[in-house]
Amino acid sequence: MKASIIGGSGYAGGEVARLLLAHPNVELAQVTSESHVGEYLYNVHPNLRGHTKLQFTTPDQIAPCDVLFVALPHGEAQKRIDALSALAPRLVDLSADFRLRDLAAYKKWYGEEHRAPNWIGKFVYGLPELHRAEMKSASYISGVGCNATATNLALLPLVRADLLDASRPIIVDIKVGSSEGGNSPSLASHHPERSGSVRTFSAVGHRHTGEVEQELGLTNVHLSITSIEMVRGVLATAHCFLKAGATEKDLWRAYRSTYKDEPFVRIVKDKTGIYRYPEPKILAGSNYADVGFEIDEATGRAVSLCAIDNLMKGAAGSAVQAMNLMCGFAERAGLEFAGLHPI
Amino acid sequence: MKASIIGGSGYAGGEVARLLLAHPNVELAQVTSESHVGEYLYNVHPNLRGHTKLQFTTPDQIAPCDVLFVALPHGEAQKRIDALSALAPRLVDLSADFRLRDLAAYKKWYGEEHRAPNWIGKFVYGLPELHRAEMKSASYISGVGCNATATNLALLPLVRADLLDASRPIIVDIKVGSSEGGNSPSLASHHPERSGSVRTFSAVGHRHTGEVEQELGLTNVHLSITSIEMVRGVLATAHCFLKAGATEKDLWRAYRSTYKDEPFVRIVKDKTGIYRYPEPKILAGSNYADVGFEIDEATGRAVSLCAIDNLMKGAAGSAVQAMNLMCGFAERAGLEFAGLHPI
Amino acid sequence: MKASIIGGSGYAGGEVARLLLAHPNVELAQVTSESHVGEYLYNVHPNLRGHTKLQFTTPDQIAPCDVLFVALPHGEAQKRIDALSALAPRLVDLSADFRLRDLAAYKKWYGEEHRAPNWIGKFVYGLPELHRAEMKSASYISGVGCNATATNLALLPLVRADLLDASRPIIVDIKVGSSEGGNSPSLASHHPERSGSVRTFSAVGHRHTGEVEQELGLTNVHLSITSIEMVRGVLATAHCFLKAGATEKDLWRAYRSTYKDEPFVRIVKDKTGIYRYPEPKILAGSNYADVGFEIDEATGRAVSLCAIDNLMKGAAGSAVQAMNLMCGFAERAGLEFAGLHPI
Amino acid sequence: MKASIIGGSGYAGGEVARLLLAHPNVELAQVTSESHVGEYLYNVHPNLRGHTKLQFTTPDQIAPCDVLFVALPHGEAQKRIDALSALAPRLVDLSADFRLRDLAAYKKWYGEEHRAPNWIGKFVYGLPELHRAEMKSASYISGVGCNATATNLALLPLVRADLLDASRPIIVDIKVGSSEGGNSPSLASHHPERSGSVRTFSAVGHRHTGEVEQELGLTNVHLSITSIEMVRGVLATAHCFLKAGATEKDLWRAYRSTYKDEPFVRIVKDKTGIYRYPEPKILAGSNYADVGFEIDEATGRAVSLCAIDNLMKGAAGSAVQAMNLMCGFAERAGLEFAGLHPI
Repeated sequence: MKASIIGGSGYAGGEVARLLLAHPNVELAQVTSESHVGEYLYNVHPNLRGHTKLQFTTPDQIAPCDVLFVALPHGEAQKRIDALSALAPRLVDLSADFRLRDLAAYKKWYGEEHRAPNWIGKFVYGLPELHRAEMKSASYISGVGCNATATNLALLPLVRADLLDASRPIIVDIKVGSSEGGNSPSLASHHPERSGSVRTFSAVGHRHTGEVEQELGLTNVHLSITSIEMVRGVLATAHCFLKAGATEKDLWRAYRSTYKDEPFVRIVKDKTGIYRYPEPKILAGSNYADVGFEIDEATGRAVSLCAIDNLMKGAAGSAVQAMNLMCGFAERAGLEFAGLHPI
Repeated sequence: MKASIIGGSGYAGGEVARLLLAHPNVELAQVTSESHVGEYLYNVHPNLRGHTKLQFTTPDQIAPCDVLFVALPHGEAQKRIDALSALAPRLVDLSADFRLRDLAAYKKWYGEEHRAPNWIGKFVYGLPELHRAEMKSASYISGVGCNATATNLALLPLVRADLLDASRPIIVDIKVGSSEGGNSPSLASHHPERSGSVRTFSAVGHRHTGEVEQELGLTNVHLSITSIEMVRGVLATAHCFLKAGATEKDLWRAYRSTYKDEPFVRIVKDKTGIYRYPEPKILAGSNYADVGFEIDEATGRAVSLCAIDNLMKGAAGSAVQAMNLMCGFAERAGLEFAGLHPI
Repeated sequence: MKASIIGGSGYAGGEVARLLLAHPNVELAQVTSESHVGEYLYNVHPNLRGHTKLQFTTPDQIAPCDVLFVALPHGEAQKRIDALSALAPRLVDLSADFRLRDLAAYKKWYGEEHRAPNWIGKFVYGLPELHRAEMKSASYISGVGCNATATNLALLPLVRADLLDASRPIIVDIKVGSSEGGNSPSLASHHPERSGSVRTFSAVGHRHTGEVEQELGLTNVHLSITSIEMVRGVLATAHCFLKAGATEKDLWRAYRSTYKDEPFVRIVKDKTGIYRYPEPKILAGSNYADVGFEIDEATGRAVSLCAIDNLMKGAAGSAVQAMNLMCGFAERAGLEFAGLHPI
Repeated sequence: MKASIIGGSGYAGGEVARLLLAHPNVELAQVTSESHVGEYLYNVHPNLRGHTKLQFTTPDQIAPCDVLFVALPHGEAQKRIDALSALAPRLVDLSADFRLRDLAAYKKWYGEEHRAPNWIGKFVYGLPELHRAEMKSASYISGVGCNATATNLALLPLVRADLLDASRPIIVDIKVGSSEGGNSPSLASHHPERSGSVRTFSAVGHRHTGEVEQELGLTNVHLSITSIEMVRGVLATAHCFLKAGATEKDLWRAYRSTYKDEPFVRIVKDKTGIYRYPEPKILAGSNYADVGFEIDEATGRAVSLCAIDNLMKGAAGSAVQAMNLMCGFAERAGLEFAGLHPI
């Protein structure tokens, strides 16, 4: 099966390339880039040296293939979706263009009208933990927001088990690495300025809130994002309050029932050792979402944590997992890397 | 005026030594350490090389002085307070031993009975922004918790201006550096394990909550702490909800009226540039608390941020500022360092 | 084929475990640890959560197997080699115990008599690039020193092509990460002290010099080691002088002829892009050695660079590559991971 | 005494501003910037918030003053030196424009003819440890190269004591932080790419070699530069060989006689503790150069180390120290900051 990537010079596109080059069922056919045409993939993604001799092509040189991954800047996929969809019977779009099913929500969070409203209904939201069944018969799958993914996976067990006290707000404080900002240099990403920073942005009103509201059906969830010293990784700390009487045992039951069969979600809540809660650093390069929680039974306060690699479970990893489901491959195919320790 | 330090081999004690060696009104007389007796201060604190030839002495070699700083491990000061207080007419204790005025609160947060209950009333809580007037006539001043300090300074304007909606919880998500854990090595602080970590501890039930409840009179405040890649620094992100109708203007007014005359609190809330909100990295070595905020007027949600250097404003800096007030020195004496950029 | 690991709680042993768990030809049978008996591997190596339910056993519970990996502290393998070798027909020892073939050299660099001198001749030095043929019929393979490996691979092309001016010294300045020091906490590895350090140790007289002298036949090579802010990784910068008339073309020829068929050595010397020379960070978790060079034809000065992941090519990766050769597996089996970008 | 800064939005200019704002003998009058006219200094240098209300002006708004600091990009000062020198009787230029006294050397290292050759002889090279006496009667002082400074201070004692074996090369392997590259963003300085890198540049032919050759009279010195994970700091590791018979005692004598009266050079060579050799991290913000050494008496090999903060001793700190000498101020005035530990 042949797969190509539209927009492969960015970080998410580069990760898709890495995963497909090692995938047992797929051959990476072509990768496009507007600014790197003719360069080897490994000139931009130095880890791929020795793994491929592919050179970036222009989008119009792309040939029909079996699966198309689209990793263009925000807004581009919706403009070109007709042409893109003509290239392959199956398409995974990593951008935010086809994540929100509600046009009003799209306009609210992205500040503009959607350019391809009739396409929205054709896409399945790209988180396998929420839409596995639909993916198996899907032709079009959207990407996931990395911060939304960490939030959704942290809160999903509490929503499914109906444990949340709806009268109190859910505050999700999210710590992110610098790769989340993409590969365009700016003064904010200049190493002497960015290094060691603990820099809040989107203290209120983060766009990924729309994905959480849609997927979990919550209306009182509030995200805040803080950039920290890290390249890859997201830790979502979801602060919430439980219905009266909820116990630690209830939470264990909720997390286990939600995730016990999930191939890429691990519950991390240990009483000893160093890594007692989810931590993103050991997830670099892996497709795992590590989920854990803490509860103060006296006050009903709970903290649910989810760590992911934003470029993997938060982007390329979920995209390949979705492709596996869509194409009938083993769900873990090409995603077996365990992550590193120490790192 | 002669000052000595009991327990000067730790990080907070070392900072007090650095500040006193450069202080215009004080001579650093003696510094004790149980495990480094006879060694030069600069063997432990290499930045002091060339600034002092002092060697660590044992506690029983300490001579009477004018001000005594005590920087012992938790629980030690309350055991020895009678002997310590005999050494100097003025004493600043950096530990948690004399911060809480309520014995039940002390027992709740520290899990044990206080050993010197009759001394508690003699201490003024060590945050000048809250107790400046009392400090001017005080003889005994307690330390401050670093996480409590960042939280208290973030929330103080909202409390004073009575802007908080008391029916909804205040969630304070706090990011901290590794120096907060002190100078005892462990596997958790071993560089390959600690480096790059985003490690939650005290997700619920953090001890410093007691200091926030006491100083701000709040009962619905919840702290969670996450260690990140950083040596010095705290960023407290206080998520709260405001009374109906509160506007950004109200917040500006509240922050300005609270802090406009404070020598060590700066309001940081810019529309341009990189450093639009408080960030701890530029505060390393300085005594500033940088405070900022964001508001979503539609939902009444506010996020108040406070960044400090945990060893300075969160420990030694506040202690020296308190000494300045207690001794009638200029409040900024010895604390003029601006911090560095870039860093 | 069953493989077991003696000493699997350390960093190198943990990496062997990770590699064997994903190896297509091997089943990881048992892993020992003296201090973690009964714990799950993933309690110590959190990246293995979900990849194995193995628990650490004591060394005396170990059953016979097909290949035994030994990753004990220095000096232990030579004490127990008779017993260890009875457990399996093939053995790879990652320590320094069986690397040096000359007993006098061993005593010079390790300051003690060897405890198992009759075993030394049975071991093949563990770098496949130097001993591939012997490994195919070997039963006992030693480990490699990580700093020695980076040095040997940097200098090998110059030695083979006889380009070095022997009258001038070869200075190898080596930058290393914190994982090289193992997993025992100390004040030197305590995060606030180790973070951001550029800390020279072994400025002269580094032990790995013995491995370089033995493998390359050089007598004028001098290693200096500096710890920098990094967990995994080694960059060896070999400063040397070439015979009169040597040109950049000669060097290209030397590097290409040495490495063109090596599965895990890449020549990195680009004129554009960011990653023009070898850099360790993109090698984390991979078994590559990236090698590059620069020459000043006017002075005959050359700088040869080699970057590796110290736990992979410098320890566990080379060990597994050696096992692959010894057992007749595909040389790249279990070692295909490309490394990550960005990281 | 009034001082102004031409080019104050860069990192070195910002450090001069920080130092002058706290200087007991100087008033900072004006600071220019072409791209930030009208902005507050603290918008660019956030550490200066609360320390000054100065706004950047254009160069043509600059008024005559007593001392002028020039911190323009390379090549600019030589173009404008006539106009600049008309503004103040004393001038310190931080750029490389007036460091080299030999026009041929300038052309060799900078690849172009000098634009103001008649001015070169008027400048004193800006390292006080080498030119203190001349500075006291100077009107024009050049800057210093940061890498050259660390190299010069590492090797000066060996040169003065005539201990170097001239027949063997001196290799100086220099590790530097990201602030050395200035404040212009590029892909190479983009945080996800630059973070954690160990990136060699100028493996051969580094420009600062010219300053070392000039100041120390050496002809066989070779510099190589490697960028590491650090914002501020330089560690120069000078690998050299000594004349036959040289001992550790000889080196101690040489270092002590060279530096015993230097206010900003400390000899760091301890047998215990963690900080046994010079390390840049504890020097952030300080004007110290820490110098140490190691010797292998058997081979005559010596390693001399010098650590500095590139923006301080390697730029702004030396410039202010030079101003102090030129103006008859106390040499340490404004430069007393001890540096931080831990950091």
